[in-house]
Amino acid sequence: MINTLVEKIKKTKAPIVVGLDPTMKLTPKFLQEKAFKEYGETLEGAAQAIYEYNVGLIDAIYDLVPAVKPQIAMYEQFGIPGLIAFDKTCRYAKEKGLVVIGDIKRGDIGSTSESYAVGHLGHVQVGSNSYAGFCEDFATVNPYLGSDGVNPFIKICKEEKKGIFVLVKTSNPSSGEFQDRLIDGRPLYELVGEKVREWGETCMGDEYSYVGAVVGATYPEMGKVLREIMPKSFILVPGYGAQGGQGKDLVNFFNKDGLGAIVNSSRGIIAAYQKEEYAKYGEMGYADAARAAVIDMQKDIAQAVNL
Amino acid sequence: MINTLVEKIKKTKAPIVVGLDPTMKLTPKFLQEKAFKEYGETLEGAAQAIYEYNVGLIDAIYDLVPAVKPQIAMYEQFGIPGLIAFDKTCRYAKEKGLVVIGDIKRGDIGSTSESYAVGHLGHVQVGSNSYAGFCEDFATVNPYLGSDGVNPFIKICKEEKKGIFVLVKTSNPSSGEFQDRLIDGRPLYELVGEKVREWGETCMGDEYSYVGAVVGATYPEMGKVLREIMPKSFILVPGYGAQGGQGKDLVNFFNKDGLGAIVNSSRGIIAAYQKEEYAKYGEMGYADAARAAVIDMQKDIAQAVNL
Repeated sequence: MINTLVEKIKKTKAPIVVGLDPTMKLTPKFLQEKAFKEYGETLEGAAQAIYEYNVGLIDAIYDLVPAVKPQIAMYEQFGIPGLIAFDKTCRYAKEKGLVVIGDIKRGDIGSTSESYAVGHLGHVQVGSNSYAGFCEDFATVNPYLGSDGVNPFIKICKEEKKGIFVLVKTSNPSSGEFQDRLIDGRPLYELVGEKVREWGETCMGDEYSYVGAVVGATYPEMGKVLREIMPKSFILVPGYGAQGGQGKDLVNFFNKDGLGAIVNSSRGIIAAYQKEEYAKYGEMGYADAARAAVIDMQKDIAQAVNL
Repeated sequence: MINTLVEKIKKTKAPIVVGLDPTMKLTPKFLQEKAFKEYGETLEGAAQAIYEYNVGLIDAIYDLVPAVKPQIAMYEQFGIPGLIAFDKTCRYAKEKGLVVIGDIKRGDIGSTSESYAVGHLGHVQVGSNSYAGFCEDFATVNPYLGSDGVNPFIKICKEEKKGIFVLVKTSNPSSGEFQDRLIDGRPLYELVGEKVREWGETCMGDEYSYVGAVVGATYPEMGKVLREIMPKSFILVPGYGAQGGQGKDLVNFFNKDGLGAIVNSSRGIIAAYQKEEYAKYGEMGYADAARAAVIDMQKDIAQAVNL
């Protein structure tokens, strides 16, 4: 799947992933009203509204970008109906040819981690049948539990030719509380980066590994060091736009081949219609606003990397 | 909810939580056959089998222990039907008066972490209504992202009088890869323990804080230090039994008041019927075997703490 992602980035010239992180505040009112009319102000109603929102977004951007990244927390808050909307969103995005990165930040140990991997990236055995509970192509994984937590994901990735992005240096202000602490003179995130390289060496695609890393756009200097530590790992870069990262800050995350990073934007694209810049599209034109925002983002990133 | 947990431990004299971590290998064949007859060898069939398995277990142990801890990964592997079984299990356990610790190991930042907290411990707003997507009393939380990831959980815990257990030192062999690394001469898990104390001070119950910690039974010496660092935090102790921890190793996790820790056992109880020791109960008697295993575990723990 990393090969597919690389091909799609080359083809679209857009190392961009659109974060499908719908909340009720972001979901256009007309979609909420339509869904509530059918399902009432219920979890099912909310789930239907966010699914319709996503379908509109996917239809508007699927030819421009290689991938989408639904953040499962935004769906999980609506319980089972929300998770059904998550699954339907993943399946719809795949039908449209998009790579799906499940932002699930799971992580446990042994058979428990394997269960998460099986559920999101693999197939579970039931009697003589096997099923894909969810169907992402990549998943984000938390490294705090060490190799015991990550290796079961890698096992499933090898079987299914899928991939993971391990949290290394997250984009939030307090990420330094633990991640920046110095161990033998070097920050923890560098040690995690070294493990990512090590884990990644066991499962290489053509140019890049099945094991990537998450490094926040908000920390470009750290991105530079991590880029060197993990030359064969794709970096998923959150924190662009709403969290403060800018196109020119992104240069450090890419390799000289113009590859090696994929930049996420969520609110900046899916709720572009709420921003002054794209207000002319109006709420009904939220999908067109998202498309315009993707095109602008692509131009902004072109400052950092030769597309 | 921490007050309720403390009361229930005092009443049952059993600082034990039963890990409801069903897999197909552990689920008695007769329950699988019954479910497959009705639903086929499908995700729905698997989900029905594990739910019936749990109901039998809960009925057998609800008067002996204060709490159960369903591990959501085991359900998530079966996709939506599995998560419905997770939710039904939580609701059934609560009906029976048990405290439910959702072993979900979630962790993200800001509004995303808040969405997890809302989904599992709180209520989500849909128009003028509010709903509990899932309904656990406690959730486990991963600290790698720092305070930005934990504070949104604490906010919801305060509103809902619920609680969390933050991963500090996990029970697995490779937990030391990052958690044991020395920072200014002290291991990372101690620094996380200090943050747990700090977070916990902002939301105290009568005797203990809403913010607890996860520390593996497999590391009793580290448990001793962490017990001192976080005197007001309840410690959730996994790794007893199948992972190698024993009753006498548990003394370090308790406070002088005989409280402060709750020990998890999963396979050792729910699949006791597969162990030679309890083979006499047979597969049909899996629930009675579980009950006997709980009683034996209580005796074993009595070596470490005055119940």
